[in-house]
Amino acid sequence: MTATASSAPPIVEFVVTGDEVMRGTIADTNTAWTAARLYPLGFQLRRTVVVGDRGEDIRRALLEASVRADFCIVSGGLGPTSDDLTAECAAQAAGVRMRLDEAWLARMRERWAARRREPIPKNNERQAYLPEGAEVLGNPEGSAPAFALRIDRCTFFFLPGVPREYYRIFDELLLPRFARATGNAALRTRVLHCFGVTESRLDEMVAPIREAHPEVRFGFRTKFPENHLSLAALAPDDRTAAENLARVESACREVLGALGDGADGATFAQSLGEQLMKRGETVCCAESCTGGLASQLLTEVSGSSRWTAGGFVTYSNELKEKILGVPNELLRAHGAVSEEVARAMAEGARRLSGATWCPAITGIAGPDGGTPEKPVGTVWFALAGPSETRTKLSHFRGDRGQVRMMSAFAALQLVREATGAPAVRNAFESSHAAPPGKA
Amino acid sequence: MTATASSAPPIVEFVVTGDEVMRGTIADTNTAWTAARLYPLGFQLRRTVVVGDRGEDIRRALLEASVRADFCIVSGGLGPTSDDLTAECAAQAAGVRMRLDEAWLARMRERWAARRREPIPKNNERQAYLPEGAEVLGNPEGSAPAFALRIDRCTFFFLPGVPREYYRIFDELLLPRFARATGNAALRTRVLHCFGVTESRLDEMVAPIREAHPEVRFGFRTKFPENHLSLAALAPDDRTAAENLARVESACREVLGALGDGADGATFAQSLGEQLMKRGETVCCAESCTGGLASQLLTEVSGSSRWTAGGFVTYSNELKEKILGVPNELLRAHGAVSEEVARAMAEGARRLSGATWCPAITGIAGPDGGTPEKPVGTVWFALAGPSETRTKLSHFRGDRGQVRMMSAFAALQLVREATGAPAVRNAFESSHAAPPGKA
Repeated sequence: MTATASSAPPIVEFVVTGDEVMRGTIADTNTAWTAARLYPLGFQLRRTVVVGDRGEDIRRALLEASVRADFCIVSGGLGPTSDDLTAECAAQAAGVRMRLDEAWLARMRERWAARRREPIPKNNERQAYLPEGAEVLGNPEGSAPAFALRIDRCTFFFLPGVPREYYRIFDELLLPRFARATGNAALRTRVLHCFGVTESRLDEMVAPIREAHPEVRFGFRTKFPENHLSLAALAPDDRTAAENLARVESACREVLGALGDGADGATFAQSLGEQLMKRGETVCCAESCTGGLASQLLTEVSGSSRWTAGGFVTYSNELKEKILGVPNELLRAHGAVSEEVARAMAEGARRLSGATWCPAITGIAGPDGGTPEKPVGTVWFALAGPSETRTKLSHFRGDRGQVRMMSAFAALQLVREATGAPAVRNAFESSHAAPPGKA
Repeated sequence: MTATASSAPPIVEFVVTGDEVMRGTIADTNTAWTAARLYPLGFQLRRTVVVGDRGEDIRRALLEASVRADFCIVSGGLGPTSDDLTAECAAQAAGVRMRLDEAWLARMRERWAARRREPIPKNNERQAYLPEGAEVLGNPEGSAPAFALRIDRCTFFFLPGVPREYYRIFDELLLPRFARATGNAALRTRVLHCFGVTESRLDEMVAPIREAHPEVRFGFRTKFPENHLSLAALAPDDRTAAENLARVESACREVLGALGDGADGATFAQSLGEQLMKRGETVCCAESCTGGLASQLLTEVSGSSRWTAGGFVTYSNELKEKILGVPNELLRAHGAVSEEVARAMAEGARRLSGATWCPAITGIAGPDGGTPEKPVGTVWFALAGPSETRTKLSHFRGDRGQVRMMSAFAALQLVREATGAPAVRNAFESSHAAPPGKA
């Protein structure tokens, strides 16, 4: 066995409870999210156990982890209903009784009174009972308190499973503790979003930086069609952590160039929007095969009305002619998936909308409609701007959904390049559509 | 301990292997998918264990399951690279040696030769080595063979983790075995997709049918903004299974009415598309707050060009006027989020596109832009059709993404109702936007 010596990295395990997860009613996404945050800190993530709402299964999972792990994060089963057994199972596994936490009960009553007229139901008061010896961590979002409890050699952290509550508790209350557990007082993290590069190529590109800077840890996460690179700087003090992170982030941004498209949860469209807003410019898409997806990516950003006026989904040739004014001769001579039609769509959209930048997308998303000359995945792009209209041809691999998503991102990428980001050298056409998984 | 008596339901466990899963690079979605399929058959799903690519962790997980479970499904680690350890760990856990499966090797070479010129790499040949005593199940999609192996009291099924391969192997090769393990020879399943109803309300609505028909098992899965109801009929012969399923499905469809929107993976938009195609009709959306999402849902359906011509994303008031011809007076007098503007958008879109049905959506998706009279979540709909234009006001709860998704679905629902589906009584406005999780 490892990690009893003090130099070995601490072992972390996860326990997830809940019949809904065990039956597949909902999928557990908390642990992947947590693992992506913890891994760069150098912990050994060894095991996740998912069990249903059965006392014996929960107790067994806790007791097994208690002799193997240094830390164990337990999610779910802290609600007010009778199938929420986790706190009681924790007490039983630790061999202690439940005690009423008066302070938490008072806080619950206060919260409740601020929102509702009737008194708090008896059931809900159950959430103020915790195992003796447990340390209350709290919950900035809800009524189930997160708590810590030592069982055998392992420190357990119990969290509600609702993602909104879970994420906030983890980031605000647990992450700093984990950082300290590495022997460092300060942690600075950054997630760089990358589009147009496979995970393995991304790994290769940043490898020299990673090797030169052991003071910052690197992690990777696939979020199709993007790959996320997470950087974590642990240091004895915050200033050193911030400086180390800044140095490595800027080195990574330099090698990534246009491949890096956002950071810390800002979407591709969001970082494009910020760029446009700075320049006082707007965008409006003319879409065929993506059928509204590019516009949807733009408008899902809160506040996007400041830099997008709308878009045109001209799926049929009739609408391409009638709305965007694509000449019928072009459609007949070159087909809808052609450089000429892409150009006419973009220019038509720009004439109509008055937007600064109008990307157009016309392609064959599949699974039907491919020909030997224009196989599935063939997509023509055009970008009409203030001084000229540029065009581009791409060939994407993958299924209909992947081709559409890659096409929408690639169209927005053209706008990014035109507004100052360095050009991407078609890297995203290589193998980005590979299935996210492993044999 | 349970389930050693022959009358207790068989216990099923899952083991998932792979550093990418353990580190959060990818999330494990296979087990939730599998659980949703197995639960209705009456198995006791007791535990999922996720471990990284460490031999000792994989062996330990297998040996622990071998004394607890009747069946264990293991996914991942069957690929050709050096960190794919699962087959070897299975042999070690079972105390047997690896043997070369000549038949599988021949099949691999054949497959390879059909696609590439160079001979198969030595590394890939590793995939033809299996534990002695293992039964080859095969793999219709790839080169890593699924196999079955008995260890102690448990029958293990080893599957590649790539979802595409995993799903097909499970459905074609494993599901029939699990059905037989229940003592029945035949299994018929159906998944009904429901929109406009919470999971608990859905449960309530079908409860009398469930109680009257123990021969069919019911399961639930949340897939925002839909809830999926799965029905599984197990019977001694296929005809009985089919009859039992048909009877219960039709009873469920009757109580659900318009709430049931599709089945067996057909999306909401897809079932609407089929309905339109039967009637020889078309649809074209005019979107404001949904910003292309409704059009995107329609056009992500393969073959949707037969029943949708395109759409208009008129996010700004200028485009509402310029493209759809919404009178400036209406916008000034009532604001963009109003019955009058929704009506004018829908009628403008119908005039321009010539589509049979034009739904319009204009609302406040948030988080900003709400007022006391029109709070975030206020959405006006209109549907312009052959004989009239109908309008509707909804108030949705939830974040920006949820309001937008509910709005897009609700707009398509108006078309469904107009084309023959019974009307939904606003059920979806109640609490559908509750976070998918549990404290």
